[in-house]
Amino acid sequence: MLWELLGLVSGVLSIALAVVLYLWVTKQDSGTDRMKEVATAIQVGAKAYLSRQNRTLIGFLAIMAPIIGVLTAFGLSRDPELAISAAGVGVAVAVAYLVGAGCSTVAASLGMMAAVHANVRTANACRSGLKKAFPVAFYGGAVMGLGIVGMALIGVSLIYWLTNSVFGWPEATAVNVVLGFSFGASALALFAKAGGGIFTKTADIAADLVGKVELGIPEDDPRNPAVIADNVGDNVGDVAGMGADLVDSYIAAIVAAMILGVSIGGGIFAVLPLLISAMGLFASIGGILLVRTFMRKSPGGALNAGTYATSVIFVGLLFVITRFAGLEGNQWLGVFLPTVAGLAAGIVIGMTTDYFTSIDRKPTLRTAEAASRGTAISILTGFSYGLLSMIPSILGICAAMFGAWRLAEVFGIDPFYGIAMSAVGMLSIAATIIAGDAFGPISDNARGIAEQGSLGKDALEIADTLDAQGNTSKAVTKGFAIGAAALTVLALFAAYTHLADIDLAQGINLISYPVIIGLFIGAMMPPVFSALLILAVGRNAGRMVEEVRRQFRDIPGLLEGKAKPDYATCVDMATRGALRELLLPCSLALIIPILVFIVLGKEALAGCLAGSILTGIIFALLMANSGGAWDNAKKYIETGAFGGKGSEAHKAAVTGDTVGDPFKDTAGPSLNTMITVMSLVAEVFVPVLILLGL
Amino acid sequence: MLWELLGLVSGVLSIALAVVLYLWVTKQDSGTDRMKEVATAIQVGAKAYLSRQNRTLIGFLAIMAPIIGVLTAFGLSRDPELAISAAGVGVAVAVAYLVGAGCSTVAASLGMMAAVHANVRTANACRSGLKKAFPVAFYGGAVMGLGIVGMALIGVSLIYWLTNSVFGWPEATAVNVVLGFSFGASALALFAKAGGGIFTKTADIAADLVGKVELGIPEDDPRNPAVIADNVGDNVGDVAGMGADLVDSYIAAIVAAMILGVSIGGGIFAVLPLLISAMGLFASIGGILLVRTFMRKSPGGALNAGTYATSVIFVGLLFVITRFAGLEGNQWLGVFLPTVAGLAAGIVIGMTTDYFTSIDRKPTLRTAEAASRGTAISILTGFSYGLLSMIPSILGICAAMFGAWRLAEVFGIDPFYGIAMSAVGMLSIAATIIAGDAFGPISDNARGIAEQGSLGKDALEIADTLDAQGNTSKAVTKGFAIGAAALTVLALFAAYTHLADIDLAQGINLISYPVIIGLFIGAMMPPVFSALLILAVGRNAGRMVEEVRRQFRDIPGLLEGKAKPDYATCVDMATRGALRELLLPCSLALIIPILVFIVLGKEALAGCLAGSILTGIIFALLMANSGGAWDNAKKYIETGAFGGKGSEAHKAAVTGDTVGDPFKDTAGPSLNTMITVMSLVAEVFVPVLILLGL
Repeated sequence: MLWELLGLVSGVLSIALAVVLYLWVTKQDSGTDRMKEVATAIQVGAKAYLSRQNRTLIGFLAIMAPIIGVLTAFGLSRDPELAISAAGVGVAVAVAYLVGAGCSTVAASLGMMAAVHANVRTANACRSGLKKAFPVAFYGGAVMGLGIVGMALIGVSLIYWLTNSVFGWPEATAVNVVLGFSFGASALALFAKAGGGIFTKTADIAADLVGKVELGIPEDDPRNPAVIADNVGDNVGDVAGMGADLVDSYIAAIVAAMILGVSIGGGIFAVLPLLISAMGLFASIGGILLVRTFMRKSPGGALNAGTYATSVIFVGLLFVITRFAGLEGNQWLGVFLPTVAGLAAGIVIGMTTDYFTSIDRKPTLRTAEAASRGTAISILTGFSYGLLSMIPSILGICAAMFGAWRLAEVFGIDPFYGIAMSAVGMLSIAATIIAGDAFGPISDNARGIAEQGSLGKDALEIADTLDAQGNTSKAVTKGFAIGAAALTVLALFAAYTHLADIDLAQGINLISYPVIIGLFIGAMMPPVFSALLILAVGRNAGRMVEEVRRQFRDIPGLLEGKAKPDYATCVDMATRGALRELLLPCSLALIIPILVFIVLGKEALAGCLAGSILTGIIFALLMANSGGAWDNAKKYIETGAFGGKGSEAHKAAVTGDTVGDPFKDTAGPSLNTMITVMSLVAEVFVPVLILLGL
Repeated sequence: MLWELLGLVSGVLSIALAVVLYLWVTKQDSGTDRMKEVATAIQVGAKAYLSRQNRTLIGFLAIMAPIIGVLTAFGLSRDPELAISAAGVGVAVAVAYLVGAGCSTVAASLGMMAAVHANVRTANACRSGLKKAFPVAFYGGAVMGLGIVGMALIGVSLIYWLTNSVFGWPEATAVNVVLGFSFGASALALFAKAGGGIFTKTADIAADLVGKVELGIPEDDPRNPAVIADNVGDNVGDVAGMGADLVDSYIAAIVAAMILGVSIGGGIFAVLPLLISAMGLFASIGGILLVRTFMRKSPGGALNAGTYATSVIFVGLLFVITRFAGLEGNQWLGVFLPTVAGLAAGIVIGMTTDYFTSIDRKPTLRTAEAASRGTAISILTGFSYGLLSMIPSILGICAAMFGAWRLAEVFGIDPFYGIAMSAVGMLSIAATIIAGDAFGPISDNARGIAEQGSLGKDALEIADTLDAQGNTSKAVTKGFAIGAAALTVLALFAAYTHLADIDLAQGINLISYPVIIGLFIGAMMPPVFSALLILAVGRNAGRMVEEVRRQFRDIPGLLEGKAKPDYATCVDMATRGALRELLLPCSLALIIPILVFIVLGKEALAGCLAGSILTGIIFALLMANSGGAWDNAKKYIETGAFGGKGSEAHKAAVTGDTVGDPFKDTAGPSLNTMITVMSLVAEVFVPVLILLGL
């Protein structure tokens, strides 16, 4: 069966389109010299960040890859049933791990470079109208979406095809190698998401504290040494970080479904997740190409239409592939329906997230109104709505799980496989979602460049429209990413129990002390991880504030605009600080699952994973949505409500927004990645540790 | 076996001592006319609050009691094995429910009246020195501790004795009636804790917003119409609320242990929890009487010594009672050691909580330092340390559970019974803990009265010393209460699985969708409950701010101090608002468990309870400790650090403190009660619903 090569085909097509779009974007005009100057500074900063991040990542990989390879080989060598070379598999897993990290890194880096070229061109296109500007921003973002998802699918397809069809390894072993690839991609995701999150807020807070608060110069002012780091940060966090995060979930969902597919007999069940993802990528390519034709009045309408078009095409292709995959009787419905349920849940979760952070809805309006009664009340109000915001998302996840399980069962498909397929279904349109998300920071940057380049009121208004839509896309993507991560880790959870040789029918007893202790420890991880990241932002910003103050003190004529600040040092400081601060929280995510397994056993680790999923999702939603509500409450007041800019209410809202910054851009979004990484650590190491007799 | 009457004896002794202390306290001199005036206003306000709360409670009970009675009777009438009158049991359960609520209410009301008489007398005694003032405050608080715990133990003992020994009902049925008593006590706890929490912060915020912020008059100024409500609030929240909460856990732990005791054979196992609690109460009586002799230098030392003395006496008595209870072979160690483990964990958890909120430790100092860098950073820092603060407490709970389980198992005792006994052990010294806790608001009030009564610098300094110690006691008690609630609900969880006829050995499968959905829904409850309470405080405070403004506008000469404000209207508004706002969150706590059971089944409900325990503890610790850190950071700055009072850092810290107020005094502490109530709802209704075939 060479069907898995469909994944390869769709991946290649996707990357080809990404290249075409990249070339198209870079062909656009970058505008005035002043604009080019700002854009070049951002590009240089982005490159500086990427090169340091990637060097650190290589160091990390150099330690991890041999460990994984040797442990796998050593563990497998004790498996009496294994007929193939344990050392060969060990090498393959280590290589897959490196390839996984490498592919994601290359794709994320290229996507980010596309974004930092698209921003200035979008700004310039704003001078010619919304219909000219929108495609530049959107296609700039689409490079990221198409590139990283295409790369991921090529990797998974090729590895599975090589190991299973070419080397002739058993399906279970082939999937094991794919798992190594997934683990590699998650390594990058952790760096890009958590490290990028620290980076972006370090720069943001330092720029604001010295620039706006101490010296009273406006936002995005080129005299501020931290301003370029701030602009780079938007791209690091929202383009590279979010892309890496979603792809991390994307690959993990496919792998989890493949593991479960092998466990229920393999064959078509093992490759179906790949095939369905390929259909999703074809659909995304179609949807992305169609977005431009949907652009009539508002960019928001076009983006939504693109998502719906992708979904409709996907469901059509899904029908064809499941109906004619050769499943017995009505079994195809047991795959088709759970996959559609997952997709539907993803869209619903994304849209309801929007409610809690939209500038014209109750949560944001109440938070803004509360700001007129003082900072504390505003913070309490935003926080409370953040807590309430979890209701629709969690009910959506529960509904998807319930639907997937029952529908699979009814049509004779293993229910765990059904849940895994619902995760695959939700993430199948990842390329379109990432494209819409990356549109956000590109528009945000474009607005900054338009302001700094003095493009005039009309262009600025268009840039504002794009920026506002970008914020909505970012919020929708965050909700989607959390929902996707939830279903993915639930699928990984089921895959874990299979890999750890836990009898699924007998299961894991919730009322036994190892499981309860595991639950408590797992549940503690996301809040502790969040706290460490938030404190890291504070420390790192503190250091950078010193540097910015130093530059204003030591560089003569800087404040008067006669001299240029040293942007590069600020970018470098933020990068080094972010990567250093990453050490403790990331080590915890890697070590705790292994420790729990060794001390308390595999049932306790199952509890630990379940606990981390529960609170991970709760804290991710709380932080993303309270942060969004505070941010938009500030923007709402800036439209003139409750006294407008400069009023007491505005000051209160600004404080709320600053509290929300590390919530929504550092800690919150990193939690998805953290819980995925914890689950992957369990999958990768536990079977080996069991074989080693630990 | 009339051993259970030991509980009665200890309870009567405890109440006798409470009465003696009450009389002693009220015999002390209340000082100047001005002081008496303030104190009388607080007393009148407290009475007004109590009378309205109790009236609402009666309405609530009038609806609930018949429902519980009829359902029980109806359910039992379908039980073919029941040889006694189902109607009789139904009536008994309903009556026990009413008695449980009644006893707690009477004890809490008396305890609170003792506190509002002790405060002014403490203030007056401050004029004669610390050694005179300390016993007044402490014994004032001890009335609450001894009264409410004594009442609880009398209730449990009498009901068990009457139903089992006098009526001759089987042990399981007798325990069922005791469960009704426990559920009744929890009804009051929910009202006192959540309602009181809304009340106290409504008054606090309204008093501050109009008084300090708008008019610039000092804290505790008698011209402020909300000031008495604020003082009443301290007593409502910390005396009545915390007492009711701890006793709620206390009774629930005993009942859970009795249920499990019956399930493993009954006899001595059924009554041991009662006997051990009686030993704990004897020990507490001793410890409380000894506190005064420990008072040499600092009140903190005396309070700690009292706790240690109680613990030592308790362990001695525990040894005697378990060793000679007639258990076979080494089985007594399987009860003795888990009980000691629970007690030790409680003390350790209380003490480590202290670290995270102490004015001279890193978390608070860092939060204060962050305040010098702006409001947002200060809030983020306190929040982060609040998240980190869960580590020692959760590890402590896990250690207690692990120890209790393993130690029980080793000595041939059912491990679930071991966990229940560790909860009983932890709570056995509840009377001493509540006494120390109630000391807090009494000292706080005394400080306010000393200020308003112009008692001079020396007296004020002594009042300050007491107040500072009171804050520490309150923090320690909060940690203790959360730990106790955690172990108690874990014991209730085990009891639930027994009552719901779930095979403990086979257990509840964590990897099945009803359980996972239950976990998600349960985990969602504490954050949603918190959000509703915090928003309620905001709304209620908004209404009260209007009233305070109205009084300053409409009462001529009020601001000049020539006219008196209308304190009573403010107290009444805060009360009515608090009770009204209680409706939605409390209904959720009562209805959701039943709904989950009916829609998804008993395994899902087990998941739901487990989920609520997990996040309940996490959010309770987060809110209590971040609130404490912000509060003490403000106090630290007021000692002159980072610019002292009036500086920018101070303003930032005040905002942090205001954010923390509903965290630590409304939402956080109510979560203990909420998770206990949810578990009790499951125990009370599920067996009946199962018999009814739902």
